[in-house]
Amino acid sequence: MNFLDQLKYDERGLVAVVVQDAETGEVLMLAYANRRALEETLRTGFVHFYSRSRGKLWLKGETSGHRQHLRELRVDCDGDAVLVKVVQEGGACHTGYRSCFYRRLAENTAGAALVEDGEKVFEPGDVYGKG
Amino acid sequence: MNFLDQLKYDERGLVAVVVQDAETGEVLMLAYANRRALEETLRTGFVHFYSRSRGKLWLKGETSGHRQHLRELRVDCDGDAVLVKVVQEGGACHTGYRSCFYRRLAENTAGAALVEDGEKVFEPGDVYGKG
Repeated sequence: MNFLDQLKYDERGLVAVVVQDAETGEVLMLAYANRRALEETLRTGFVHFYSRSRGKLWLKGETSGHRQHLRELRVDCDGDAVLVKVVQEGGACHTGYRSCFYRRLAENTAGAALVEDGEKVFEPGDVYGKG
Repeated sequence: MNFLDQLKYDERGLVAVVVQDAETGEVLMLAYANRRALEETLRTGFVHFYSRSRGKLWLKGETSGHRQHLRELRVDCDGDAVLVKVVQEGGACHTGYRSCFYRRLAENTAGAALVEDGEKVFEPGDVYGKG
């Protein structure tokens, strides 16, 4: 059976996708994919998602050029989450950081501040325009 | 502002939580948390989730003893996903594997098989009973 038939898609037809840097192990982002996005990821070798806000298939990096080259795909025990290990061009985050998880809780208490703690790899204005 | 007020909870009141081994960088699991689960995680230092299937707060390891000691908490750019780095006791997965992502696509094509490729760290029957 095709593994795409083994996944447990939610009521929107989506599974969660965790993206991890294949070289450093850094977790870069979390997004969602439908069956079509996973098919396109495997067909092209570049990670695709389903954009919940735009309601459409989304090639990561289609605007920025910061594509994610698929190296490895894993599925979790209950089949509703996928882990992809990638070689990331540029940065994964639209803010210019390498990882979308660039904010860290300064201390492990609910009242602590979120501090920026990540590698900035590009200026968003240079990539997406100044608009 | 308390960072728990900055998160974008979905219509069920949940955010996605990616759990990563603080020492090895291995992605261990993906689950969901509500505000209360995050509060309990920070209050106790042990990761809590909200179980969608059981509809209740869930201390990871409450049955198995395989708790996750919080080391670091990060928030993604749009505030609907959290990354926790943990010290994992035993294994994260109820199957006995260290990580829930123990199945790997053998080749990067949709027709390829999922193969088990992970570290088995306990026998489920020993931990959860032979049921």
